[in-house]
Order: sequence, then C-alpha cells, then structure tokens
Amino acid sequence: MPLDTLGMTSIHDGPTAAQGFRAAGAAGGIRYEGRPDVGILLCDGPASAGAVFTQNRFAAAPVIVDRETLRKSGGVARAVVVNAGNANACTGDGGLLDAREMATLTTEALGLGAGEVLVASTGVVGDALPMDAVRRGIGGAVEELERGGNSEFPSAILTTDTVRKEYALEFDVGGETVRIGGCCKGAGMISPNMATMLAFVTTDAGIAPSILETTLRTAVGRTFNCISIDGDQSTNDTVFALASGRAATITTEHDLAVFGLALESVCRELALQIVRDGEGTTRVIEVRVRGAKDDADARLAARAIGESLLVKTAVYGNDPNWGRVLVALGYSGADFDPGRVAMWIEDLQVVRGGIRADYAEGDAETRLRDASPVRLTVGLDVGDADATFWSSDLTEAYVRENSVYRT
Amino acid sequence: MPLDTLGMTSIHDGPTAAQGFRAAGAAGGIRYEGRPDVGILLCDGPASAGAVFTQNRFAAAPVIVDRETLRKSGGVARAVVVNAGNANACTGDGGLLDAREMATLTTEALGLGAGEVLVASTGVVGDALPMDAVRRGIGGAVEELERGGNSEFPSAILTTDTVRKEYALEFDVGGETVRIGGCCKGAGMISPNMATMLAFVTTDAGIAPSILETTLRTAVGRTFNCISIDGDQSTNDTVFALASGRAATITTEHDLAVFGLALESVCRELALQIVRDGEGTTRVIEVRVRGAKDDADARLAARAIGESLLVKTAVYGNDPNWGRVLVALGYSGADFDPGRVAMWIEDLQVVRGGIRADYAEGDAETRLRDASPVRLTVGLDVGDADATFWSSDLTEAYVRENSVYRT
Repeated sequence: MPLDTLGMTSIHDGPTAAQGFRAAGAAGGIRYEGRPDVGILLCDGPASAGAVFTQNRFAAAPVIVDRETLRKSGGVARAVVVNAGNANACTGDGGLLDAREMATLTTEALGLGAGEVLVASTGVVGDALPMDAVRRGIGGAVEELERGGNSEFPSAILTTDTVRKEYALEFDVGGETVRIGGCCKGAGMISPNMATMLAFVTTDAGIAPSILETTLRTAVGRTFNCISIDGDQSTNDTVFALASGRAATITTEHDLAVFGLALESVCRELALQIVRDGEGTTRVIEVRVRGAKDDADARLAARAIGESLLVKTAVYGNDPNWGRVLVALGYSGADFDPGRVAMWIEDLQVVRGGIRADYAEGDAETRLRDASPVRLTVGLDVGDADATFWSSDLTEAYVRENSVYRT
Repeated sequence: MPLDTLGMTSIHDGPTAAQGFRAAGAAGGIRYEGRPDVGILLCDGPASAGAVFTQNRFAAAPVIVDRETLRKSGGVARAVVVNAGNANACTGDGGLLDAREMATLTTEALGLGAGEVLVASTGVVGDALPMDAVRRGIGGAVEELERGGNSEFPSAILTTDTVRKEYALEFDVGGETVRIGGCCKGAGMISPNMATMLAFVTTDAGIAPSILETTLRTAVGRTFNCISIDGDQSTNDTVFALASGRAATITTEHDLAVFGLALESVCRELALQIVRDGEGTTRVIEVRVRGAKDDADARLAARAIGESLLVKTAVYGNDPNWGRVLVALGYSGADFDPGRVAMWIEDLQVVRGGIRADYAEGDAETRLRDASPVRLTVGLDVGDADATFWSSDLTEAYVRENSVYRT
C-alpha cells in the first residue's frame, strides 16, 4: 500500500529523526583505520525497548548479554553501544566479560544507571574483542554525544557495506506528528563472517514495552526475516526498537494499527536496502506467493524460491526459466496441487494449471531484463494466505568476494 | 571401512556387471545431436525392483507412472527405459500419456508383458517429450539389445555431465560370487533444469522385492541423500535397484548385512562421482558430524554445513574459516551445547570448547590447500550419532554455467 494513502510521509532522516534521540560515531581502530567503528545511540530518558535476536545457537556474547539485560529491566533502556569489525562471537566466557564491559564503560561515561545500556557487535567471528580500541571508540563517541551528537552512527556500524542504510517517516496520531526512523547494516549475510545484520529503529511515540516488542516482532517477521542473500543466519543478527514517548502516546487499537504499519514500512525499507547492497548483487528478486493454505506455507514457498541458487542464477542471466521456480516450490514443503499452480514474471503469465502458459519466450525475456526488482509471482489457489520474500541474484562477484579474502 | 576388510573387491564395470542384465543406448535426437540419448536396461527374467523417488511435489510424469507400476507389480520388473534431454516434468496430463507410451513402446518391442517396464527421463523441465525422437531411440536401443547390448547405456543417460559414472563390486555369499554394479547421472542438481539425478543399480543376488526396497532406502539415505551441490531437489530424482537372482540368494541376517554394506558402497561411490563432476566444482567437501544426539540431528548439522554458501566459498578460496562452519551449525536446528563443540580441518583441531583452539593459521591453510576431499569434522559431544555429508565448493564457474545459457 502506498505510504500516502496511510497518511505517512517518508523523510530524509535516520535513527535520530524521532524526538528524544541523539547518536554519534567515533573511530576506535578495532579493525578498520580512519573510519568510525564505535557508535552510541542515546535516548534522553528511559525508552521502551524491544528487540528481536538471531535464532542461531551460537548466539554472540552481546546477544546473550542483551537478552539478560532486557529481561531484568522489563524492556526499558537508555542507550545502545555498538562496534564494527569484531562480532564478539564464538568467544566463550571471555566474550561475555567483554560485552558486559562495553556496556559498563558506556554506562559510566554517560552517567547512566546499571542495566540501561544495550550492546551490539558486528564483524569477524572467533577473535577476542580488542578492548583498548573499543574503549577509545566509546570515549570518542561519548564526547561527540556531549556536543549534541554527530551523523556518524549509521557509518560506525558498517563492515563490508558499500552504503549507509537509513530511513525515516512521519505520520499523524491524534493530531500530533509521530516519527519512526532507523538505520541498519548488513551486506546480506554474505560477508566473510561479518556477523551480520544489525538494525536500530527509534520512535518518539509513547508505547508500552510489551506492545512495542509484539509490534516489532510482527514487523520483523514480514521484513527482515523475509530477506536472504545466501541463507546464512548469523550469530549476531539483532533488530532493536527504542521508543522515547516524546510525541503522541499510542492508546487506541486504530493508533496501534497505524503505528504497526509505519514500523513495518521502516523495517521493510531498511531490509530492502540490505538486499540492494548485498555483495555481488546486481538485481533484487521479489517473490510473491498468493493463495497459500496459511501464512507459514506462503513463507515456506516464497523463501524456497527466493533462496534457490538456480532461480538466483537464472535472474542474473536474464533467463525466464520458470521451471526452476516450480522445482523450488515443489521441494519447499508447502502444500499445494501441482495442477492448480500459476506463475507470472512481472505481469506476464508463464504457467497456468501447472504447465507452460501460452506466451512468447521473447516477451518473458524482455520483462526480466527490464526489471529490478524482478517480481516473480506464484499463485497456489488453495487458500487466502500471501507472503513476499526478497533476495538477490547470485553472481560471480559474490563467489569472488567470499572466497578470495577475509576482510 | 575399507572394502577388502569386508571381503569386497571393486571391479571395473557398471550396470551389467551382475549376471542376467543387458543394456544398450542409442541416438534418438531428443535434444542432442550424434550421441546416445535413449537407454534400455534389461533383465533376462523377472527382477526384484526397488526404487527411491524424489520428494518434490512436482514429481515428473515418469516418477508418477513408475510409482503406479511398482505398486501394481508388487516390486517386480524386467526393464527400465530412460531418455536424456527432456525431463517430462511440469507437463501435465500429456506428460503422463507420453511416459506411459514410452513404457508401452519398449514393452512391445521387447515382447514383454504389461507393467514390466519402468521409465525415467532427465533433461529440460516444462517442454513436451518429442515422441518421434523417443520412438527412434527406443527402436535403436532394442536392436542393440537383440545383438547382446552395447556399452552406451551409461552415456545415454547423461546431460551436462562431463564423465560417465559407473561402479561395480563383487563379494562372496555362501561361497558364491555376488555382484552389484550401477551407473548414474547428475552434474550435481546444478544444470539448467537438467532434472536431475538418476541412478540404476543392478545385482545378481536373489532378494525379495520388499527387502531390496528397504535395503535400498537405507543405502540411499546415507549416500545419494547425503550429497548436495546446491540444495535444489529436482522433479525427476530416482534411484532404481534391480535384482536378477542369478547368483546366491540372500537368506541369513549376516548375508543381508553384507549385501546392505555392498549396496551402500556402490551407492556411495556413484554419489561421490556426481559430486566430483558437479559443474564448476574444483573440490569435494566431506562434512563429518560426530557425537550428535541422534541420526536426524547429525544429518541436519552435516547438511547445513555442507550446503552453506559461506563454507563452500571458503573452501574454494582455501580459507580455513571455521567461524563459517560454526555459524552454519548454529542455525542447522541440531541440538548441542556451544561450549562443548570441537572442530577439525583434516587432522588439525581448530575449535575446542566452542572457541578457537591453539593452532597456527598457516597450518590450517596448508591442510585445506592440500586436500580433496576436504574433511571438516565437527564434534558435538552430546550423544553417539554420526553422519557424513558430501558437497562441493562454490565457484564463479558454477554461476556462469547456470546463468548464461540454457542447455
């Protein structure tokens, strides 16, 4: 649905679009030279805090520490400190101590209370966090925050990303303007252990922690969890949402529905920026499954198609090879009747009743060549559930960047 | 376990190593010019027949027809007819008629009875089978069979494979020599819709259909189902086993155990030939999981590691990047305690207690560079179950071959 029909306007801003938030980045020298690699996002009062973490059993130290912090605080926080260049993952008990120290250093430098600082890391897996560099970066970021913040937070979280990823929008709640903005990083789960996907979303809406958490979970399920570059789920994947309560408070069901849609819009835009920036990506693939038995089945099917290497290479090669899409659908585990399957490449129907529709090969090639994202739509005709999944084509550049060097 | 300790000897032969079988291939001109593309494998009497088929819901027409044929016959057959170049998949009711006609043409030309011929196809998905070419190929193959057969059957089943894939061995049952041999095709499920993996295994052992079926299922579960090039399971994947009963009959538990091991050896060798010939493959990866909770968990873990694009590109780049292996283990769904995980690259331990072991990076690189297959061993230390999975590295050549043309 277009934003404006929902009364929403995108604004050129990021994680500090919402009232009550400051952010800064500074260079600590963790792994990269001469660029910010430690960032702090600060709310000027207690914020409702929601988070969705990786399901990887090798959860990184900061993930383990944050889960504990949020459980104790009941979903309230003041700040997040994040470093790039080292994921603090597969680092054992020493890693847990380091993650806690990152939080403590930030707490003390900002004069906050215990348990008010969340922590995130992204970068190489398996190496101990260089705490001197982290300390230097935290010191620099705190100095910047004391001067009102700088614009380097979205840069400080990047690893092999080629662009900053930010987005914000505003909308109206009971006559008051509410903003949601955020930033994220991730070159598509494809970097050499740059574990991997971090997103920070803020809002000035007033919303209870438990409701923020539930709303975030739904939004992430439809956005960040519906993208894939290579299917590798990292040890550090985290999406944070912080709400300052400086603008309108979400009280009615209607306001909550609007807030949920706005949050989903921000998450979707940030997620798509990750797919577009995936290493080696030349095209985004949008897989839409319609008429599935239920939501779970729709997502199973869309994910299998989006993650199929044969589909990804076909799109790269401008080959309208619908057989590969049906093969992936067939092994997805989704429930359907082969004889009722339909498929479209953009607006051109290429499959009807499970077999080739009447179309000209040249027309399909033209549709594919001109499109990015490339929209592949599959109709199952067994129910009412839909799902959309975004992935990227698979290119020689992906292979090169992931084989020839470790960043 | 080495073959000779089990009293088995590999012999330079294939699907006609076992007594009672003849085979032939001939050129029908289905898609390729001047090479055999139709093959017939014939037993000189009724053979016990077992088969394992794809789980893809878009099962190809020959798979649907064979399931029906074997159900009706109770697992007895005389011949298999197979064509390359066209998979007869996603072809609807017309495809079913064509598959049945392929069987009927062969039945009549060989003077067999109804329901004695199985059928298989491999090649492009979605196009109707060119029956004139199929008829020509069947005619040619039957003529060759009448002259005693030729050696072209293993060639007639190939699509983008670069080599014939054959293997046979013999062993002793109660003082009598029993042989199991076979051939297969598959450039690793990676060809442009060359749907995909076919294997034909024969033996002269005497064995009841239901026992052959069970034994085949176990062997396939540990071999053909434990390989992957790109995780795409095709619409046509089929493994057939035919037993002529010309040599010793399997009667005791001990004989059956030996027969099962021999069948598994043949299936493993054929499966590995597929991985080695995977398009773009330069190295085979052997993932061994030890000490898992149960067999299902061991396979989950081994498959996730073997199929991880990051692991596959790391091996291609000779990067001993154990973090990628642990990340894949972490999202595999297998049950384990991160703090007890160990890992070896060949004989070098690189992870102990879930974190980096004490080793020199250069040693790990040397181990990786010198090895093919590359053995990656993961110890979970939570149970007694083991699994082995074979995959290949991911290279620019894979991407090229699957994007720039449709064979």
